[in-house]
Amino acid sequence: MAVPLAVAGVVPTVVAPPALRVAIAGLGLIGGSAGLALRAAGHAVVGYARREETRRLAVQCGAVDDAPATLAEAVAGAQVVLLAPPVLAMRELLGLVAPHLAPGAVVTDAASTKADIERWALDLLPAGARWVGSHPMAGKETAGIEHADSALFRERTWCVVPPPGADPEAVAVVTRLARDTGARTMEIDAASHDRAVAAVSHMPFMAAAAIAQSVIARESFGEIASIAGPGLRDMTRLASGDAVMHRDICLTNRDNLVAELEEYVARLSQAISLLRRQPDPDDAAGHPAVAEMGAYFADLKTARDTWLASR
Amino acid sequence: MAVPLAVAGVVPTVVAPPALRVAIAGLGLIGGSAGLALRAAGHAVVGYARREETRRLAVQCGAVDDAPATLAEAVAGAQVVLLAPPVLAMRELLGLVAPHLAPGAVVTDAASTKADIERWALDLLPAGARWVGSHPMAGKETAGIEHADSALFRERTWCVVPPPGADPEAVAVVTRLARDTGARTMEIDAASHDRAVAAVSHMPFMAAAAIAQSVIARESFGEIASIAGPGLRDMTRLASGDAVMHRDICLTNRDNLVAELEEYVARLSQAISLLRRQPDPDDAAGHPAVAEMGAYFADLKTARDTWLASR
Repeated sequence: MAVPLAVAGVVPTVVAPPALRVAIAGLGLIGGSAGLALRAAGHAVVGYARREETRRLAVQCGAVDDAPATLAEAVAGAQVVLLAPPVLAMRELLGLVAPHLAPGAVVTDAASTKADIERWALDLLPAGARWVGSHPMAGKETAGIEHADSALFRERTWCVVPPPGADPEAVAVVTRLARDTGARTMEIDAASHDRAVAAVSHMPFMAAAAIAQSVIARESFGEIASIAGPGLRDMTRLASGDAVMHRDICLTNRDNLVAELEEYVARLSQAISLLRRQPDPDDAAGHPAVAEMGAYFADLKTARDTWLASR
Repeated sequence: MAVPLAVAGVVPTVVAPPALRVAIAGLGLIGGSAGLALRAAGHAVVGYARREETRRLAVQCGAVDDAPATLAEAVAGAQVVLLAPPVLAMRELLGLVAPHLAPGAVVTDAASTKADIERWALDLLPAGARWVGSHPMAGKETAGIEHADSALFRERTWCVVPPPGADPEAVAVVTRLARDTGARTMEIDAASHDRAVAAVSHMPFMAAAAIAQSVIARESFGEIASIAGPGLRDMTRLASGDAVMHRDICLTNRDNLVAELEEYVARLSQAISLLRRQPDPDDAAGHPAVAEMGAYFADLKTARDTWLASR
């Protein structure tokens, strides 16, 4: 009779899967932080960046084991290749990396939008390579390898975005790497991803940019700056994010973003209409617009507090 | 020959001004926090709130020395009266407090808007009372005496808002109390105050509320909530503020707020137009809209970073 090991008092040994040979092309905040986290998890990491100074810094801060001077050397023999350049540079980078990939290499990325990039990847990568997109939902207002942080992805959502008919083993490899950085993974298709991030991430940063433009960039801001508090600071924080990243997101998620911004403007216009209906404050008691405005804020407070409590 | 004291080696004694008898009507977050801070600075503080439970809590947490059951008792003999109810209750409270004020009493408030309240105060207070409005630029998402915090005003801006022809001594008293809570004071007239806060504070909370409505309150939010990160959380934080305060601000700063919201919507509409002009990302290189979008984000990042560095 077969006795389960645990019953027999033998502690089953969990065999850790072997460490992977990872190449990271693009050693900015995201690439550098991924390198730090993946090396800490035991993987072998080779990095590549165009600028020699960046490669030197990446080795120096421990984000990579090695950073050869060419993309071909960096990618040679890698089981997984993580592409982490600015979004609009992805297309060119996919073309540059394609001829040097090891047979069966899993290729993934870290860009904020997914549908255009998936199309480029399936178009440009060789038949033997296995594409699975990904998007770590993490960042900082400070770009560059010098701000790389091994804890950047901890407890954050990392979207794993397999194309139609993706190899399950390749999906598992990307999922494993994401989890090894401390992130929680979430599998989602590219179109759904881009629609969702347009709502929860891209529209909000456009809103922050427009507040910065409307208030901070106005000519007379100097006269009112001393009265500004944490509200304005927090509501414009996202406008201090990387300008190239924001531009590239706009370019590769344009249609979803326009739809979300139009919905947002419609909501603002409703609020303006409600404000216009308000009575003179001297005669406010019992006016229906006052009750409506009170319910507007109370309902939204409840919706947000409920969301935060459920996280 | 008169020898300056310092030259003669005598250290001049700075005589602290005598502590004041302060009454606070309205013992929520602001009134309670002011009580804690002013008692810590040595002032005698009597408080009043409509609800017995609130008065009991205020005494218990040390926000006031005493909290009698009537407004008349609380205000009797007070040199300074701080009114800290919800904005829309200010008018009624001014009428209730008027008959009980000691001759020469300085009356101030803590409300987020100033022009309507100044008009009510000058209308309702007796000739002997001295009105100087004020607005501590501080708050929390949590209302009520149980969240009162003696450090709430530390390093924050506290607007002192004298009406035309205000008594300088009364202005000095309000300025002193504000500074005794640890705040930095800023003197400004009521109309300028309301215009400024519409831009830096009220429009941003309306923007936050509209993001919460547009994204969190949508029917399908459950499907995308797991992808939402700190961006959405921070861009809606102000929507978790006190709903009654937000409603009352809308009512008493309506015209400035509508003007600011319309300016904001115009900026968002410009951004939407720019997005629509963007090329297909496959042909993006060299397209003028790409450069324009890049400059848009870079300029706003510079404007905000410059502002924050100058604070």
